[in-house]
Amino acid sequence: MTGTIDLNMVNAYIPGRADVGAKTAATISRRDRLLGPAYRLMYERPLHIVRGEGAWLIDEDGRRYLDVYNNVTSLGHCHPRVVEAICKQVATLATNTRYLHDTILELAERLIASVKGTDLAHLMLTCTGSEANDLAYRIAKVRTGGTGIIVTDTAYHGFTDAVSQFSPSLGMSVDLGAHVRMVPAPRVYHAQGIDMAERFTRDVAAAIADLKRHGIKPAMLIVDSVFTSDGILPDPAGFLQGAVQAIKDAGGLFVADEVQPGFGRTGEHMWGFQRHNVVPDIVTMGKPMGNGQPIAGLLVTHDAVAQFGRDSRYFNTFAGNTVSCAAAIAVLDTIEQEGLIAHAARTGAALRDGIAALAARHEAIGDVRGVGMFVGVELVKDRVTRAPDRETTSRVVNLLRDKGILLSGCAMGHNVLKIRPPLVLNSQQVDMVIQGIDESLAEAALGMTSG
Amino acid sequence: MTGTIDLNMVNAYIPGRADVGAKTAATISRRDRLLGPAYRLMYERPLHIVRGEGAWLIDEDGRRYLDVYNNVTSLGHCHPRVVEAICKQVATLATNTRYLHDTILELAERLIASVKGTDLAHLMLTCTGSEANDLAYRIAKVRTGGTGIIVTDTAYHGFTDAVSQFSPSLGMSVDLGAHVRMVPAPRVYHAQGIDMAERFTRDVAAAIADLKRHGIKPAMLIVDSVFTSDGILPDPAGFLQGAVQAIKDAGGLFVADEVQPGFGRTGEHMWGFQRHNVVPDIVTMGKPMGNGQPIAGLLVTHDAVAQFGRDSRYFNTFAGNTVSCAAAIAVLDTIEQEGLIAHAARTGAALRDGIAALAARHEAIGDVRGVGMFVGVELVKDRVTRAPDRETTSRVVNLLRDKGILLSGCAMGHNVLKIRPPLVLNSQQVDMVIQGIDESLAEAALGMTSG
Repeated sequence: MTGTIDLNMVNAYIPGRADVGAKTAATISRRDRLLGPAYRLMYERPLHIVRGEGAWLIDEDGRRYLDVYNNVTSLGHCHPRVVEAICKQVATLATNTRYLHDTILELAERLIASVKGTDLAHLMLTCTGSEANDLAYRIAKVRTGGTGIIVTDTAYHGFTDAVSQFSPSLGMSVDLGAHVRMVPAPRVYHAQGIDMAERFTRDVAAAIADLKRHGIKPAMLIVDSVFTSDGILPDPAGFLQGAVQAIKDAGGLFVADEVQPGFGRTGEHMWGFQRHNVVPDIVTMGKPMGNGQPIAGLLVTHDAVAQFGRDSRYFNTFAGNTVSCAAAIAVLDTIEQEGLIAHAARTGAALRDGIAALAARHEAIGDVRGVGMFVGVELVKDRVTRAPDRETTSRVVNLLRDKGILLSGCAMGHNVLKIRPPLVLNSQQVDMVIQGIDESLAEAALGMTSG
Repeated sequence: MTGTIDLNMVNAYIPGRADVGAKTAATISRRDRLLGPAYRLMYERPLHIVRGEGAWLIDEDGRRYLDVYNNVTSLGHCHPRVVEAICKQVATLATNTRYLHDTILELAERLIASVKGTDLAHLMLTCTGSEANDLAYRIAKVRTGGTGIIVTDTAYHGFTDAVSQFSPSLGMSVDLGAHVRMVPAPRVYHAQGIDMAERFTRDVAAAIADLKRHGIKPAMLIVDSVFTSDGILPDPAGFLQGAVQAIKDAGGLFVADEVQPGFGRTGEHMWGFQRHNVVPDIVTMGKPMGNGQPIAGLLVTHDAVAQFGRDSRYFNTFAGNTVSCAAAIAVLDTIEQEGLIAHAARTGAALRDGIAALAARHEAIGDVRGVGMFVGVELVKDRVTRAPDRETTSRVVNLLRDKGILLSGCAMGHNVLKIRPPLVLNSQQVDMVIQGIDESLAEAALGMTSG
């Protein structure tokens, strides 16, 4: 078995493309045999990681990599406060929500407080972001009596059967549901000056009309509020308002998928939707929620979930278990006590500014954008046509890996560097990333010319 | 808010039915406010648990309850070996399957070895049993080109949008998919001597024919190999063979849902399907896999997953993380080193025999059955008609709770005591359970007569 070639996944390991060395080749072959053909690895030469520490990952040979990609370990790998919370709780009690327990109630109180001023009133817990989006859809169907879904054209919302049907970024081989409509992602860089608020509103309204024309009642508009897999598209703040109003007017729900932007990453608020000044009916969350512990969930208005709660009991054996809740509380404590939201704003801005300054000497840099600890760097073949440069992006990602800096790519054109550092990144580490990108772009340009 | 009345869930807490005391009432009301209307509690007077230890759960007032219900903490609550494995790994590295790591490969090797002699070749990991069954369905659809599903009439396979559509035990308000057919569960006690192998085969064949008659190509037959929510129906061993052959002949897959029976609980093998001498295309697993840590997954043949693996990459951020894999390896080690499969057989048999002996003085006991540490006690109004006695079952479950013994109910008639002790239950604890059931049945009979 030689593994599977997935040209649809940005930065997938492609067997045979690079010499990975005998030891890694043996591990990959063992893995293919044991885990089968559906698993993918990252990088031309995959990493065998054995330890994590702050912003660092350490491989089997003791080499250190600055991890500016994993947005799960948002507080840094193995944050002592989370480790302590997990170890204490796992030795005391790990059980489920059919008994009363205080940790889940404390967690709910804290998270509901983070959306004060909205009608979002209840927390429901899952183990993964996919489960959260799947549950959001079940709730939306019951509330609206509809099934129609609107997503952006390179959205990723998860892997369950229902959610994969509204995750176009999974590629052409995974069918979208007949009840799903795509709207173009808000690519301001390619909008030729058109007002994005107007255009996005118009596109969502057209999708609603098309659903209705096919006899499909709209259930929800769901967007990642930073449009991560679409290419990291946070601006202009507020452009979502018209689209949110359109779906609500059509009787559908607005679901903010905060699995990636949530928990302070935007450096402005706890949640990405808050900078757009819109109010979701459901907010889904996950990845950094337990800094690695499997926990995810959603906040929902009472109105949205009332009928669902009468009709369907909700029970998820592991979700809301005392250990996962304790981890999530430790995450919230740490974000607050280490002042990580403000830190993410400052450090993220420095990172963006530093990369933007590189544009003067690297023609490939078309656009540098982001918010807080979310940075997207769009690489183009030509600044006039703005044609995506997938090859350079892939080259730069792999050169950076060789220099000990881990990030990846995203967007429909596979040409946006996706940088999601832990919120605790320090300024020395920011400089390392900027320098690494600078060197890699230079080397990539050289390689392309000579190659 | 007063919580939701769910008459469809066996042993659900029903607001207002019993005096729960001011402290518990306040916690329930806080919980309703924070978690909303879809969550349920167990028992007329819900428990507020704060600590677990071996087979015991301890409530906020320090009262100890013998837990013979939670089949997640199969090694006992807070098993030191699992706690140690989690604490060690969580302080070292908690990351995902896009990097190479040895724990997932070791876990895969161990689990694949448990199905030696079959074509089951690959392990794929999820966080929950629901996700595992959801993924099994996605794989079955791609492999077969069909969508049709056959389940038993009180089956529970999970809560995702797709899986809830083939989980009839969720009740009438949760619609089954139009592509789902139910067959009667193998209720030998009600079969009036009819050969169960023949009947079950015939029912599955009829369901296949009906799917085809509606233009729906069969994708899979999925059964919990002990038919837990159907009422714990393990016998006669081997009766599944004809049905499995029928679905394979129709081009569908056979999926063994081992989320509840797996990991040695049957006291005979690692997996429940093995006692039926059938070979599944997919085996899903979960609950006891990490003794509380959220981990689940599936074993699958290369043939079943080959096309899926080419078309769809599979990535689940938290599934296969190093911490969950370390917990699962510790569980496998413990089952082996403490000889828990053989122990489950011996102790489970003693438990069943002891309860069966009670039938001499309790007319309500219609049938006592099970395998290993799975025991079902069917309570009837009358041993001739075998009419389900839901009221007595509910009474007994709640009387036992008051005596400090935790179990629950199952089956379509809500009249089967569901007993799933940790595999480590000792003989003194077995006697406690038998004595508790004895006393509770006596009290329930008295209450029914006088009431």
